[in-house]
Parts: sequence; C-alpha cells; structure tokens
Amino acid sequence: MAENLFYAQSGGVTAVINATACGVIQAAREQGGRIGRVFAGRNGILGALHEDLIDTSLESDAAIAALRHTPGGAFGSCRYKLKGLDESRAQYERLIDVFRAHDIRYFLYNGGNDSMDTAWKVSQIAERLNYPLVCVGIPKTVDNDLVETDNCPGFGSVAKYVALSMMEAGLDVASMARTSTKVFVMEVMGRHAGWITAAAGLAARRAGEAPHLLLFPEITFDPEAFLARVDACVREHDFCAIAVSEGLRGADGKLLGEAGSRDAFGHAQLGGVGQQVAELIKDRLGHKYHWALPDYLQRSARHVASATDVAQALALGRRAVELALAGRNAVMPAIVRTSDEPYRWDVGVAQLKDVANREKMMPREFISGDGFGITDACRKYLQPLIEGEDYPPYVNGLPAYVSLLNESVPALLPPFAG
Amino acid sequence: MAENLFYAQSGGVTAVINATACGVIQAAREQGGRIGRVFAGRNGILGALHEDLIDTSLESDAAIAALRHTPGGAFGSCRYKLKGLDESRAQYERLIDVFRAHDIRYFLYNGGNDSMDTAWKVSQIAERLNYPLVCVGIPKTVDNDLVETDNCPGFGSVAKYVALSMMEAGLDVASMARTSTKVFVMEVMGRHAGWITAAAGLAARRAGEAPHLLLFPEITFDPEAFLARVDACVREHDFCAIAVSEGLRGADGKLLGEAGSRDAFGHAQLGGVGQQVAELIKDRLGHKYHWALPDYLQRSARHVASATDVAQALALGRRAVELALAGRNAVMPAIVRTSDEPYRWDVGVAQLKDVANREKMMPREFISGDGFGITDACRKYLQPLIEGEDYPPYVNGLPAYVSLLNESVPALLPPFAG
Repeated sequence: MAENLFYAQSGGVTAVINATACGVIQAAREQGGRIGRVFAGRNGILGALHEDLIDTSLESDAAIAALRHTPGGAFGSCRYKLKGLDESRAQYERLIDVFRAHDIRYFLYNGGNDSMDTAWKVSQIAERLNYPLVCVGIPKTVDNDLVETDNCPGFGSVAKYVALSMMEAGLDVASMARTSTKVFVMEVMGRHAGWITAAAGLAARRAGEAPHLLLFPEITFDPEAFLARVDACVREHDFCAIAVSEGLRGADGKLLGEAGSRDAFGHAQLGGVGQQVAELIKDRLGHKYHWALPDYLQRSARHVASATDVAQALALGRRAVELALAGRNAVMPAIVRTSDEPYRWDVGVAQLKDVANREKMMPREFISGDGFGITDACRKYLQPLIEGEDYPPYVNGLPAYVSLLNESVPALLPPFAG
Repeated sequence: MAENLFYAQSGGVTAVINATACGVIQAAREQGGRIGRVFAGRNGILGALHEDLIDTSLESDAAIAALRHTPGGAFGSCRYKLKGLDESRAQYERLIDVFRAHDIRYFLYNGGNDSMDTAWKVSQIAERLNYPLVCVGIPKTVDNDLVETDNCPGFGSVAKYVALSMMEAGLDVASMARTSTKVFVMEVMGRHAGWITAAAGLAARRAGEAPHLLLFPEITFDPEAFLARVDACVREHDFCAIAVSEGLRGADGKLLGEAGSRDAFGHAQLGGVGQQVAELIKDRLGHKYHWALPDYLQRSARHVASATDVAQALALGRRAVELALAGRNAVMPAIVRTSDEPYRWDVGVAQLKDVANREKMMPREFISGDGFGITDACRKYLQPLIEGEDYPPYVNGLPAYVSLLNESVPALLPPFAG
C-alpha cells in the first residue's frame, strides 16, 4: 500500500488557505495510488501531536472541490509553535511516532514563517531519527511577510478586500462630509509589515479619493505631522480617510494599540489604534469621525477574493504534492513573478531554511517620501495581486461554503502527555 | 418648456440609494419632454436651501446607468432636519423660492422617516403659498424602520453583508478556537430597531453555526443571562459568535455604547458596545476575544449588494417619477409583499403623513423567547430581502464606481441667510 500524506493548517487562517488544501488533496487523488491517503491534522499540528487525524479520503470529490471557495480552515488551525529541537525534543519525536504509526511519509505544513521553521525542524529530526519523511512547507499569510516568494497566498484577497472597503466607505463619507463625518479611520491587520495598509492605498485612483493617508508600522507615528496632513486634507477635500496598521508605533517604540496581552506565539494582542488615531483628530481638530475595525472580516472575505490569489493558493498546494513525491525535502513552493505587465507568475522552489523565521518588510521605496502613502513602484507590485474576481456559488442569498465530515482516523498510540 | 424636477438624497447613504437616483433620472429622461431637467440637491436639502443645484442633464446616459451599481450618495447627502413649519418657516419659504426660480414643480426626497416628514411639510407649505408642487418621498434606510412599506431599500444589502460577514468570520473563529480566539463579537448598525442584528442571524443555517447569540436594541441587556449563554455555547461549540446592535441598552435604559455626543438630528452617536460586551466576557469568563466594527463598510458594501434590494431601489425611483407626473402629492411609493414563497413584491403607494416620524420596530414574535435569537417568522420575512447577487463591473481588481460631473446650475437668487 502506498504511503500516506499528512497536511496541516497553521496560524491565522485566510480566505484561500482551503484553496491550498483543495490543491493538495486533488493533486494527491490524481496521483493514481502513488499516495495512499491524505490525513489532515485536526486543529493543525496539534492533530499530529495528539494523534487526532482527519481522514480526508472519506470526503467526496465535490466537497474537496468546494474547499476552493470556502474561507477559514476546514480542518482547524492553531496558534502553537514548537520550540527548538532540544527544548521540545519529545514533541518532535512524538510527531515522528505518529507519522510512523500511520505510515505517513509526506508532511505538508501550510503556514507562515513560524510554520516554515517547524517544517524545517521536523525534516531535521526525521533525518536524525532515520525516518524517511519528506517535509514541504506551503506559504500562507495575510501579512505577506514571507521571504523567498514574490507574495503569499491569503494576502491578495485581504488586499482586495481592504482596498474595495476603503473605496466604498470613502464614497459614503464623501457624500456625508458636508454636515456629518469628516474623518474616517479603518484599522487593518499587519503586525510588523505594512503590506495590508499599503493595499488600502490602491483604492485611491485619482487625486482626492480615499484613502488620503496611510499609517504604516514601518514609519514611526509623528502626531504633529499627521495632524497637519489631516487638517490640510479636510480643508482641500472636505473629508479625510485614513488606513492605519494595527502595528503603528510611537516615538517610544511602543505600539499605540498595545493592550498588554500576548497571544500563544508571544505576539502582542493588538486592536484599538484606529480609534486612538481618530480620537486624537477629534481632540485636536474637532472633526466628527467614524472608525471601522474589519478584524477577521478582512481575512475571511472569500466572497470577494482575488482570482489571482485563489489561483496561486491552489497551484502551491498542487505543487507541494509534486515536490513531495519527487522527494524534495525541506522546501517550499514559492511564487515567482516573471512579468509585471502583463502580470505573469510561475511556481518556483525555496529552501525552508531560507524562509524560516524571517520577515519581509515593505521596502522603503514602496512608501512615499512623507511616509503617508505608497509609491508607483508599490502600486506596480500590488496591483496584479488583487486582479480578478472568483465568486463562490450562492444559495438563498449567502455563499454555499462547505462543511466537511472531518471523520477521525482511529488512534493507534497511547495518548501523548507532552 | 416642461417643468423641472428636484431630487435630493437625505441622511445616511446606502449601497443602493444611487440605484434609486438612477431610476428617477432614467424614468424622467424617458418621459419624452414631460419633465424638463432633473436637478439634484448638492448635499441633499442644503442644495435647495442654498440654491446649489446640480444639473443632471449634463451627465451621460452611461454615467446615470452606472449609478445603479455605485454606493454612497452621488450628489452628496446631509444630516439636516427642518423643524416645524412655524419654527422654520423662513427655510420652507426659501425652498419654495428656489423651486419657483428654477421652475421646479416636482420635489422627490429620498430618505428615512425624518425626510418623509420634511417632504410632507414641504407639500403643506407649497399648498399654503399656493405654489404648484408635487412632493413625493422615496424610502431609503439601512435601518428598515419605515412604516407603510414591507421593507426599505438599503436594508436588504446591509442585511446580506452582515449575514455573510458573520458567516465568514464564524468559519475563521471556528478554525482557530482550539488554541486562540473563542469569542467573536460583531457590532452592527441599527439605533432603535434590531433589523440589522436580526439579519446577522441568517448566517446560522445549522445548529452550532455562527452567530450563536444576538443582542437586540429591543431587548434590555441582562449581563448574567447573557454570560450564562456564552459559557454554555463555548462549552458546547468551543466558540461563541455574537452580533450586537449599536443600540443595546441596559436595565437603566441607557445605551451601553453611549459616547455622550449627538449628531445633527439629535441622535446619540454610538459605537464601542461590541468591545464592551467582549470585555465583559473576557473579565468574567476569561475567554480571548476578537471584535469587529464594520461601521460604514456595512452600509456601503455595494460589491455584495442584494439583487432584490437593487431592483427595489431602482423600481421605487422610477415609480416616484410616475407618481409625480400623475400629480400624486404627499405620497411615497412603497414595497408591498404579495407572496412569501415564491417571494413576490409590487410597488404600492403610502401617504407621507402616515410614514413621517414613525419607526417600525422588530415585532416581538420575530425575536426568540429567550431574546437572543430570531424566529422562523423572522427568517421568512428576512430571507427574500438578501436574495440574489448583483455585482458591479470591475476594472483592475476594483469596482468601477462612477464619479459624476456634478455641474452646478447658475444661481438666480441672492444667498440665503437662514
């Protein structure tokens, strides 16, 4: 019997991570028996640690195809980072035990830079333990901050969502500015890298259109310079629309939105900087404001996903299976941009060790000299990533998103205490 | 030369108020000279008071057609309420002066219940001053709180948006609940009536799906009963998704989100109740939460408008012109539901005096006995309003929304000091 494949989703989910899952499972099914079953980790890598595997072979072809248009993580994801090989040796060994028990020879891990690090470490431990395992990472993050790939699946759709949301809200505010709201602030995701903030800037295609100002995590917040720009903008355009990153920092280096708590990866839990910035404007300039916090809506907005993003998410999933079967260990399929206009892309191969734990920030030349906008070079990079619409089917006025059976594979090992 | 028509948009704009404008202008253009020009008020009724009229006859047919798929208020709207006839007599007389100067014999006012009151009063003052004017109100409000119409244009699209946003965010949270966010709160619009909150409930089609709890403005918030339900929900489903109205009130009758400030209509400016409810859960039950505040995004989300809503908004605009030409004064075209399944609707005629200043709350039988959900009767009412997709055209990955020329009509009168 052919060996099995284990696939897990990691970290914050996206509008298209299930499209990658679709690509993985469809490609495996097309291999004509070269791959046995595809097991998915229930709640990500925790599913492997706790031997809680989902048997995807019980899902119909139609259900797997529907993953292509379903947001969220169909098998469950988790925020759980394995530490160093020595520190967490028992966990890494447990993974290998589970893989061995279920004849899993391919490990596909779909996540961000933390997850690429985990996949790389699993490949190392397998080698040390002399267990034949091919580890392939598959990129996924709305933050677009992975290196060695031109962009990350998940980002294009959130980029499209924030740009069109800003465009729509901007039209709303412009309509009402004469007697009502003059300032609109939308807080967007992106802890360290300003890619999503930059994407909001795509909404402004002509002078005076929203957004008028962008506040990047890469640029230290200067309240006085900012207020001067808001004031000038309201005088000129009668309103001012602003996109602000949740990761905006003041001159003291601290996050404006810092709430003090931290998530399981040790990242600060953010939120609220949008209102802080809006209140500052109200206090100092007296303008009535509204603010929006799309939060999870931005990263789950499959209803208006970028067709480019969906195609890439699917392609990377398929390519990961091909790489695994070719025995390419410790690699990650990556997007390679081969042409800007017309936009063309291909799937290349990066080494996990080059991707692990690194972050790709916005290049300074993508941010305008004053720090409040994006440059033409940035637009040229971002524009193709939001191109194309890929609507889900609708039933009774709402998207027909799929729920899988998610049947468990019977456990063969004793429970894991680690 | 034929007499002119004046059209103005009032109050908060919606995803489809421009579809109504499209219906008005297209119908007027098709009348073969029975109507001279259609003037629009720049920034709503203020445009009439200040004789700042937009000449829509300078817009191309293509631009007017594109209004059908463009959110916001294309001519500008305002929050400006005329007071009583005696109190604001100078303003009402000024309106008639401007109408007389520009040979305007039809006044079409597109707004909520405040605006229906204004349109009604304008019809009374015209009669007193013996000026031949036909006044027709056209309903518009995301709040769905106008009486004498089965539903209001603008509501169906915000209903669709909040339901699908809750569905998408719910899938996201469900994926991550094992190790991360367990509680998700989305704050929605609806100052007094819980229609939008109820619409979020459409996302849950099977037991256990988001949203699990709804907090209506019509139901006094009971923190202990609510926390007990959240606790039970997290135990059963591993997460809890909640939609809360910005108008939620405590036992003291005060708004939870009250910020103290008031808008031009004297309504309290709200916001923040979503986070308050989420913080309460965190404090008492210890669950990590995320919260979303779609704010203007919900009422400007033309990208995912309800086809039913767009069709009705357009039809009411067309019908208003027919009513005006027929000399039907002080009326409002209204949606009449003629069948639930299959859903069928027609356009009837209501009297402005019956609509003015009244609010349609959610019937108690639309809210479940425990106060935290919607009933089957409510679903039956809401379901057809979100049916159908009516996507705007896209260019370069973003909707191709139109910007009008909005050329001013030369003023003929001295400035208005009132």
